[in-house]
Order: sequence, then C-alpha cells, then structure tokens
Amino acid sequence: MDRIRLEKKVLSENDRLAAGLRDRFREHGILCLNLISSPGAGKTSLLERTLAELPKVTRVAVLTGDIQTDNDARRLARFGFPAKQITTAGACHLDARMVERALADWQLENLDLLVIENVGNLVCPSSYDLGEAAKIVLLSVAEGEDKPQKYPAIFLKSELLVLNKIDLLPYVPFDIARAREHARNIHPGMEILEVSCTTGAGLGDWLQWIKKRGEVFKAEAAKLPILDR
Amino acid sequence: MDRIRLEKKVLSENDRLAAGLRDRFREHGILCLNLISSPGAGKTSLLERTLAELPKVTRVAVLTGDIQTDNDARRLARFGFPAKQITTAGACHLDARMVERALADWQLENLDLLVIENVGNLVCPSSYDLGEAAKIVLLSVAEGEDKPQKYPAIFLKSELLVLNKIDLLPYVPFDIARAREHARNIHPGMEILEVSCTTGAGLGDWLQWIKKRGEVFKAEAAKLPILDR
Repeated sequence: MDRIRLEKKVLSENDRLAAGLRDRFREHGILCLNLISSPGAGKTSLLERTLAELPKVTRVAVLTGDIQTDNDARRLARFGFPAKQITTAGACHLDARMVERALADWQLENLDLLVIENVGNLVCPSSYDLGEAAKIVLLSVAEGEDKPQKYPAIFLKSELLVLNKIDLLPYVPFDIARAREHARNIHPGMEILEVSCTTGAGLGDWLQWIKKRGEVFKAEAAKLPILDR
Repeated sequence: MDRIRLEKKVLSENDRLAAGLRDRFREHGILCLNLISSPGAGKTSLLERTLAELPKVTRVAVLTGDIQTDNDARRLARFGFPAKQITTAGACHLDARMVERALADWQLENLDLLVIENVGNLVCPSSYDLGEAAKIVLLSVAEGEDKPQKYPAIFLKSELLVLNKIDLLPYVPFDIARAREHARNIHPGMEILEVSCTTGAGLGDWLQWIKKRGEVFKAEAAKLPILDR
C-alpha cells in the first residue's frame, strides 16, 4: 500500500511539472512530441531521417533519453539542429523534471518543434507525462503484431502508431492488417503510418503528419488562455 | 529520498522471498532460468522451439509473465507441459511474490526445470531476483548491436546472451562481432549463442547449454547445505 501511495505522489508531482512544461510549450508555440517504443524499434533512425529531410531553417530540437551512453545525441547532432542527451543512470523512463532541467539553457522562443526520444521501454514511459502535445508509439514489424494487446497502455495513450521497418515484412511473420486491428481495438481511431527508415518508404507521410499536427497545435494554442500556475 | 528508501525496501523484501524460492528450487533439484528481453525479441518463440524438442518425459514447466493477455501461456500449453500465465496488470516486471503465488498449486517434486519468461522489458526485470539459477538475456538482431552499452544492467547480470533471429542478418544492419564485443565489454566471459527460432539454427547449442547448466546446478546444489530461513 505504501508503494502505491508513493507512486501516486511521484506521478502527481510529475503531472504538476508536466503541466508547467505544457504551458511553456503552448506559450512559445512549440509542438512537443514524445516518441516511445521498445529498445531497437527505430526511434533514433526515424529522427535521423526526419532531421535529414527538414529544411535547415526549421526551428527544431531533440532531447534523447537513454539509461547509459550519449550515442543517440551524437548521432542526431550531425544534422546541425540542437540535440541533447538525457542519461537516466538506470531509470527506465524520462520524467518531467529531467525534461525541465535539459531545457534550462535553451531559448524556447527559438523553437517550433521539440521531439523527445524516450528511453527504450514499451511499459514505464507511458505513465509519465512530459508536457508533450502528443505521444507517438513506434512498433517494429520484427516485434510481432500482438504488441498492442500485450502493452495496451501506450497504444491507448498515443495519438499515432508508426509501424517501422516495413522493409522486413517479407522476412518476418507480421500481419500488418491484424496489427492495425489490434491497435484500433485498444484505441479506436488511432492514426497509423507505415514507414521504413532503411528504404525511406512512408517518410513523406510522417513529415506531413508532423506538419499537420503542428498546425492543429498552433490553432488550439491560440484559442486557449495561458494559465497562471 | 523517500522514493529511493522505499525502492530499497521493496527490493530487499523481494530478495528475501527470492532467497526462499532459491532454497526450494535447490532442495527439489529444479534448475530455474529467468528469460529477459525487449518485447518481441522472441522469448515465447524460443520456448516453443525448446518445448517441441524436449522429450515428453522431461519434467519441465514454464511461467510466463505479461502485462495483459494469456496469449503466451496458451501458445506454450500446446506442448503438453505445465504452463501458467502471470498477468501483472500493469507492472513492468515479475517479482518473487508473483512467482511464489504461481507455484503454490504445483508439486515442485515433479520438476527438474522451470523456465520463467519475464515481461518484455530490457530494463526493470533486471532488478528483481526470482530465485533463478541464471538470468538469460535475449537480443533480436533486428534491435541493433548497441543494446549492451545502452542497457548494461541486464547484460551484466545474465550468464548467457542469446542472439535471436539470426535469419534476419542479411536484411538488417547488425554487426554480430561488434554485438559480441559490446556484450563482453560489459560482462567479460559472458556466454553467447546465436539462434534462429524460424530456421532452427543454433537450437541444438541452446538445448545443450540447458543440459550442461542443469548438471552444474545439480552438482552445486548437492554440495551446499539447505539453509533454514
């Protein structure tokens, strides 16, 4: 019981910090996306392809979470946009305080888009709000189509499912129609994109999704008052 | 600070229960293996292939952990050995109490081998002792060779690394020599097997590993006194 009470306390403190981040993102018109998947589903590869395609004038930055190593931030910094690693030193997810600290020396007024790559884990990150406008879940077709049933929380909380590594479809027993069905059983109306970061298939749809989501975000942000917390 | 103290308390309570399980496994001569990986690395497929190959007289049982669904237990029960699902209802790992409860109505004197398939998660299960003789980590070659560096705890604590889905090697950018090097940088002397549950490659080595590990376990158990806890 103590454990459950403490977990609730930690989560409610996280929610408070996340709400503050959300206000700041809204105030500065920054679309914040929280990218979640199992280890090795292709979050960093998707970000590499995304940063490579974006015009150099795009005001984008990335935060990338890992338990150990700054490999991902180094991979992403090559594209010339601000990229910072959050090393969690054992923690299985990012939380709002880590994001707040990582943003402390960035000028938010210079950004339109912030992509947060979470720790590779299909379970724990789903419980931690980072102030994002949308969670996005990536699933590699090498992982199997049953994952939405087995890990429902993240599929329920994500606006978008990106089915990645579709170039491997001929070699793995993955039924893409059933994967879509499983995802929509958990989350009716969930948007789903099919992508390969190796061949580039579907990347145009993904960039289009970000663009549209940014427009929706700005329209909504303009309508809402900035709350004083 | 409260959170860290409570986490320590939870882990030390888990250690106490796990030590009790370890004594019982030793007393009954049961080799217990704790199988850990990301979602979709192939734990259930490896167990399917293993159960299919074992002689029907083998005294083996499996416990399989998932957040939701009893899909895996149903897949594994087809082979005629005892198989039970532990549904964690949100928890990101199995703990010793869940294992203790699941074993309550099984006759341990009828078993020589117990394989526990943990929740799909490369992070949290590494912190929870289940009384096993050995942790085994599976890594699918579709996940990338950098995983030992990024998720060091589980590679440090596992006796054996099973590199699975090697049939996909021609189609993915996975350098198997570097994966071995990364794993052994974290855990010098770690045993490593290469397996494909699709083609059957390497399964003989895996079955041989289990057989030898069982012999070592029995020899060690015979030497140690049963502790009264």
